[in-house]
Amino acid sequence: MARIGATGDGGCRRLALSDEDRQGRDRLLGWMRKIGLEVRIDKIGNMIGIYPGHTDAAPVMLGSHIDTVASGGKYDGALGVLAALETAETLRDAGISPRRPLAIIAFTNEEGSRFQPDILGSCVWTGDTSLDDAYRIVDSEGKSIGDELRRIGYLGDVEPGFLQPHAYLELHIEQGPILDAEGGGIGAVTGVQALWWSEINIEGEANHAGTTPMHYRRSASVAACRLVMIARALTDEIDGLVANVGRMAFDPGNVNVVPRRATMTLDLRHPDDATLSGAERSLATSIGEIERQERVVVECKDLARFAAQPFDSRIIQCVEESAKALDLNVRRMVSGASHDAQIMATVTPTAMIFVPSVKGLSHNPQEFTRDEDVVAGANVLLTTAIRLAEEA
Amino acid sequence: MARIGATGDGGCRRLALSDEDRQGRDRLLGWMRKIGLEVRIDKIGNMIGIYPGHTDAAPVMLGSHIDTVASGGKYDGALGVLAALETAETLRDAGISPRRPLAIIAFTNEEGSRFQPDILGSCVWTGDTSLDDAYRIVDSEGKSIGDELRRIGYLGDVEPGFLQPHAYLELHIEQGPILDAEGGGIGAVTGVQALWWSEINIEGEANHAGTTPMHYRRSASVAACRLVMIARALTDEIDGLVANVGRMAFDPGNVNVVPRRATMTLDLRHPDDATLSGAERSLATSIGEIERQERVVVECKDLARFAAQPFDSRIIQCVEESAKALDLNVRRMVSGASHDAQIMATVTPTAMIFVPSVKGLSHNPQEFTRDEDVVAGANVLLTTAIRLAEEA
Repeated sequence: MARIGATGDGGCRRLALSDEDRQGRDRLLGWMRKIGLEVRIDKIGNMIGIYPGHTDAAPVMLGSHIDTVASGGKYDGALGVLAALETAETLRDAGISPRRPLAIIAFTNEEGSRFQPDILGSCVWTGDTSLDDAYRIVDSEGKSIGDELRRIGYLGDVEPGFLQPHAYLELHIEQGPILDAEGGGIGAVTGVQALWWSEINIEGEANHAGTTPMHYRRSASVAACRLVMIARALTDEIDGLVANVGRMAFDPGNVNVVPRRATMTLDLRHPDDATLSGAERSLATSIGEIERQERVVVECKDLARFAAQPFDSRIIQCVEESAKALDLNVRRMVSGASHDAQIMATVTPTAMIFVPSVKGLSHNPQEFTRDEDVVAGANVLLTTAIRLAEEA
Repeated sequence: MARIGATGDGGCRRLALSDEDRQGRDRLLGWMRKIGLEVRIDKIGNMIGIYPGHTDAAPVMLGSHIDTVASGGKYDGALGVLAALETAETLRDAGISPRRPLAIIAFTNEEGSRFQPDILGSCVWTGDTSLDDAYRIVDSEGKSIGDELRRIGYLGDVEPGFLQPHAYLELHIEQGPILDAEGGGIGAVTGVQALWWSEINIEGEANHAGTTPMHYRRSASVAACRLVMIARALTDEIDGLVANVGRMAFDPGNVNVVPRRATMTLDLRHPDDATLSGAERSLATSIGEIERQERVVVECKDLARFAAQPFDSRIIQCVEESAKALDLNVRRMVSGASHDAQIMATVTPTAMIFVPSVKGLSHNPQEFTRDEDVVAGANVLLTTAIRLAEEA
């Protein structure tokens, strides 16, 4: 799979519904058929390969996505789809037919790099996003998802959500440094943390930076930097809170002019909704102080807001037990990034399995996970899938 | 003068050596001749009108500039030239011939908005900048100062610095809020403060803003904002120190990516060279702490550095006494901005007279000084000029 869209620097570029995505889908389709799966393509292009059980009970669904960001790595997404395929192939090779079928799924446009928003295929699967709305989404060249699905031949005929799974399981690289720093092992993911993205505008007053005494200034740059330091201090106070200011600009932007305006983004996340709300309230109080003391006006506009999505405790425990049964180190952890699993978790018992990302590199051609960790993760997926597929 | 290059919003646009500058120079030339001054244009386009004294002793030079920034006001520069002209006209109308001649000067390209650097005409006058170097300076369209001087007809034939004045006096708006906030009055300017402009680059590491725990981050944005707050705190500790961060940018600049790089400018000024150097050393120590604690690399590149330029104590005192003789409030103050006077001060006894800028607005079409303050400033200029022109 990594050969398709290979960028020559170890990375991959398979943007959703591009020619490279089509080639990746064609290869996946060939592999699904080769091991005898019954393949269905739904109306948003999600690809589902079904490995039969010996009953018609609700299937255990395993998967992830094969699209990548513009300058991505080999593992993000593809690992979860290929390990799911490997699970089905292993059962077939061993002649095992579990009680429940397995449904191997590759979701459309998880990354959101070409078409926004991200995690779209799972949102359409659950009904959070309508097919009509999804079809109308266009890329930067004005090409729509509907047209591009048709062009690459993956506008399927079954309704998204046509299966109601018994459980959903997703193997993924951590995309963070924790497992790697702890010497490896498996992450039993307990959920996806809550997120608040805000654009913050600060209005002060432009002034001559040489002639205006400090106490006359209403500096938007000082106010903005105070806010950054307050957010940083809050992460020391509140365990598990992360904060990032990724963008900042001052107007008019001259060395010798006190900025009249500062615009910045804030990314604030915590595993617990109430704690994140508390952090937001604390920030709002500090913003009020900054407004009074620096004599500026601060406005926050939400860019994104996602509630924490806890996973199913039974499935998490099943992942842990599977890892222990394989003599692997396992720790519970929260996912810092978004995944299709957080959407599936709203309709079916769900958990994720993380494997280490060396140095935490993510969305980067140098993204790397050692073969032994890939194998360990795939074995936990297999073991957990069999346990779930044998459930009554 | 304000009608030439009027921008319709109360402001003026007479960029150096533009057609509007030519029209302004033509009008000034006409006024100089009308009151009988002997006019000389030097090789950098400085315009000098000489009002005779009854001896050939070194003249008292009065002036400023008539070029403006792109979106400037009516008063910056033009006030000093027109009040100097008014001084000569008043003497002529009163039939007074002082011991020393007066030399009324309008310097070329004080603002530096079209051609960098600024305060060029005075630097060529004193020999700090050579004529050849000045002629080769080009604007953003590649037009040179030499060619533009010729085009507008102000490439004169006398050598810059052909006069060695007895003293130099410049009336100017404050461009800051101090006199206005104190209810008006005259500023007897004691000098121009020292200045250090720096571009600061901070190298950290890009990381996922959701999956990377805070203590793994090497955030360039946090390091940059710490530095801004340290500079701000330093202005609380050191009386008279002013600091401004006017520009800031993060790379890659995404809401959910911890910035790998921050670039910012710092403008630091103080009336005393040693105190400014002390502030720089204190900042350097703090930068070392930031580098260790935030695990980033900080590099500072000088953009500009000017030593403090004290004015002549005798001339300052003469300005003060003139203001008091006119029953005006007067206070000593340092100029926060640069002026031709700081260059003239290196070759001749110099001082400046400030009048209030309402709300400190500067380089702004709304720049405003009340008529009564304009008249007061011109009277102080006249009185001081007569005192100096009668000196032995």
